[in-house]
Amino acid sequence: MTTNTLLNPNHVVPLIRVYRDGLLHDTLPFWLPRAIDQEHGGYLTALGEDGTVLQTDKSVWFQGRFAWLLATLYNTVERRPEWLAASKHGIDFINRHCFDQDGRMFFLVTREGQPLRKRRYSFSEMFAIVALAAYGQAAGDKSAKQQALDLFRRVLKYQAEPKTNSTTRPMKGLVMPMILTVTAQEVRKATQEPLCTEVIDRCVVEIERDFLKSEFKCLLETVGPNGEFMDTFDGRTMIPGHAIEAGWFILEEARLRNNDPHLIRLGTTIIDWMMDWGWDREHGGILYYRDAKCLPCTEYWHDMKFWWPHNEAIIGTLLAYQLTGEPKYACWHQMVHDWAYAHFPDPLHGEWFGYLHRDGTVSTRLKGNVWKGPFHLPRMQWYCWQRLEEQMKASAKT
Amino acid sequence: MTTNTLLNPNHVVPLIRVYRDGLLHDTLPFWLPRAIDQEHGGYLTALGEDGTVLQTDKSVWFQGRFAWLLATLYNTVERRPEWLAASKHGIDFINRHCFDQDGRMFFLVTREGQPLRKRRYSFSEMFAIVALAAYGQAAGDKSAKQQALDLFRRVLKYQAEPKTNSTTRPMKGLVMPMILTVTAQEVRKATQEPLCTEVIDRCVVEIERDFLKSEFKCLLETVGPNGEFMDTFDGRTMIPGHAIEAGWFILEEARLRNNDPHLIRLGTTIIDWMMDWGWDREHGGILYYRDAKCLPCTEYWHDMKFWWPHNEAIIGTLLAYQLTGEPKYACWHQMVHDWAYAHFPDPLHGEWFGYLHRDGTVSTRLKGNVWKGPFHLPRMQWYCWQRLEEQMKASAKT
Repeated sequence: MTTNTLLNPNHVVPLIRVYRDGLLHDTLPFWLPRAIDQEHGGYLTALGEDGTVLQTDKSVWFQGRFAWLLATLYNTVERRPEWLAASKHGIDFINRHCFDQDGRMFFLVTREGQPLRKRRYSFSEMFAIVALAAYGQAAGDKSAKQQALDLFRRVLKYQAEPKTNSTTRPMKGLVMPMILTVTAQEVRKATQEPLCTEVIDRCVVEIERDFLKSEFKCLLETVGPNGEFMDTFDGRTMIPGHAIEAGWFILEEARLRNNDPHLIRLGTTIIDWMMDWGWDREHGGILYYRDAKCLPCTEYWHDMKFWWPHNEAIIGTLLAYQLTGEPKYACWHQMVHDWAYAHFPDPLHGEWFGYLHRDGTVSTRLKGNVWKGPFHLPRMQWYCWQRLEEQMKASAKT
Repeated sequence: MTTNTLLNPNHVVPLIRVYRDGLLHDTLPFWLPRAIDQEHGGYLTALGEDGTVLQTDKSVWFQGRFAWLLATLYNTVERRPEWLAASKHGIDFINRHCFDQDGRMFFLVTREGQPLRKRRYSFSEMFAIVALAAYGQAAGDKSAKQQALDLFRRVLKYQAEPKTNSTTRPMKGLVMPMILTVTAQEVRKATQEPLCTEVIDRCVVEIERDFLKSEFKCLLETVGPNGEFMDTFDGRTMIPGHAIEAGWFILEEARLRNNDPHLIRLGTTIIDWMMDWGWDREHGGILYYRDAKCLPCTEYWHDMKFWWPHNEAIIGTLLAYQLTGEPKYACWHQMVHDWAYAHFPDPLHGEWFGYLHRDGTVSTRLKGNVWKGPFHLPRMQWYCWQRLEEQMKASAKT
């Protein structure tokens, strides 16, 4: 893949083809129909490299994430009835089996839907919210949209509750304002609820005020309640791919707000700093963890290359280029894209491997587990395709 | 290091020197005195490669583990007052800061001893028990021995309580009968309490009956309540280094019971099977995780080489050789010893690196974190030295 530089207008069409055809002819056919559990409902996403089911336990995250993806494709690509039906398949399973009696959601259930594991974080809820919102829009189902909104309000309430486990050293994570931002963006698409924009405003302020640290030129993952730096393993930890994802959520908001200059500056600052921390100058690719004081990480797999930070960085650099026109983002986009496409795709069975050693060789060859499934890769393929097609249309007009 | 084959009697003395001098002149001086927190008590064990403190939060595991090591050296090597004082330093911190009001112990506390994290497992308790027992013996402190015994009885009660989180799919882990076995062995040394041997008998029966699977020729980590095999990521998971550790706990019991043939057979079967699963024929060293059906592991760092499985395998193969006289164990001992000593030691600052990539290169260079500290390496050096010296004395008699 050497034809991906955004600086050359002739390369946009072939690049669109890489993302679009990758999505429609490689990623989706890997998961459909085999992820659909016709017998018990929902999706089976713990698949081996050739699609063999490795375990039948169902990740609640992926019931929401895949239902969201399918409904989003229906909303934005083509109104294919099989996508809508497949999305409903996940929504139905979520509603039948994934909520506990206290209204919170499980994390892992058996194939039949019996609860196996519940976590105190509300990520299962977040992915269910975006699934319900996208599905509600796709199916014209008002009650699904309402359910998304109700659940979103409930999650906001959980977030506002004081945490019990943190009396000695209260702290907070970047992940929360990040995921609230993207969740609010999705709910807003379906409902136009003004609360969504309020939430996004609050989250962006919090990210900039509390997590962005000019003294380290980085976005931290964990800080004190008022953004205090903590000189511990946790407090020094950066996840460059995660921060870059936060960066593009903010750039997406800039795009939707008529290229808001403050949001562009914030999003590109995050991407600038975290590409610098994340890019492995020795082997290429994006390192998983870094320490803000360059001390050794406590996580022994800190230098592995995971698929998803590369998906997020491909999006982030593309969007940064589109919003600023700065050539360096086109170069970075090509750099990350080329490394990712040279190392992650499985040419034999399709889809991407998820977990590479630092040197780019494959560690575990599975395509799905509790953390990996039909989400980051197809979201990148879909989103980049959409943005590039828009760019092409815009330049055709001028 | 090519002089370590146990088959050559002339090599026993140099091998003793490797373990003894490594312990007394390399490992211990790395941790002492710098791990001693003179200001707030207890031990600081999150150290960088050169001994720099990476964070001051205190691992409760290591308060117990280091106190145990120091008291054990005092009991078995030499009655050095500084070892006894350093052991007491950890015991005092444990008693002042590491117990919650409900009698359970914390997992992580601040430098000053304020609680940061508590886990539902009782490993903090197990390490406190062995520390109290060894210290009680070293100091002739009856109340410490009694506290060890009381805490041991309390942990046994926790174990007997029904688990609340497992109604859909109850399961149990190898780790529990394993750690109860070694804890009981340590409490017995100090108290001669008959309950200890009863507990060991029960645990060994459970390991053999429920976790040893001849159909896979392996020792599993997680099974159903009656030893049922579960065809999930968890159920198929093996940790060869952990299983080999279980193997040598059983061989140690065989040794203490006048070379009990059933225990020798069980311990060596575990070591035979798990060395076969664990040894990396491509790069050498012991792989962290394997899947009993040879399916891909869900843990992305499954093929890393950690220090402690090598410590345990060096002990396990040595003990298997001493108890059976079979040359293959001497060969395996040499194989693991040579690979470990070629890759883990830090020639510049001493001690061992803990975390290597599959190919033997160092991942994170720290010497201590919440999981690594003064335990597996010095325990191996101490134990192997003791066993080899005993062997030499025995052969001198004949």
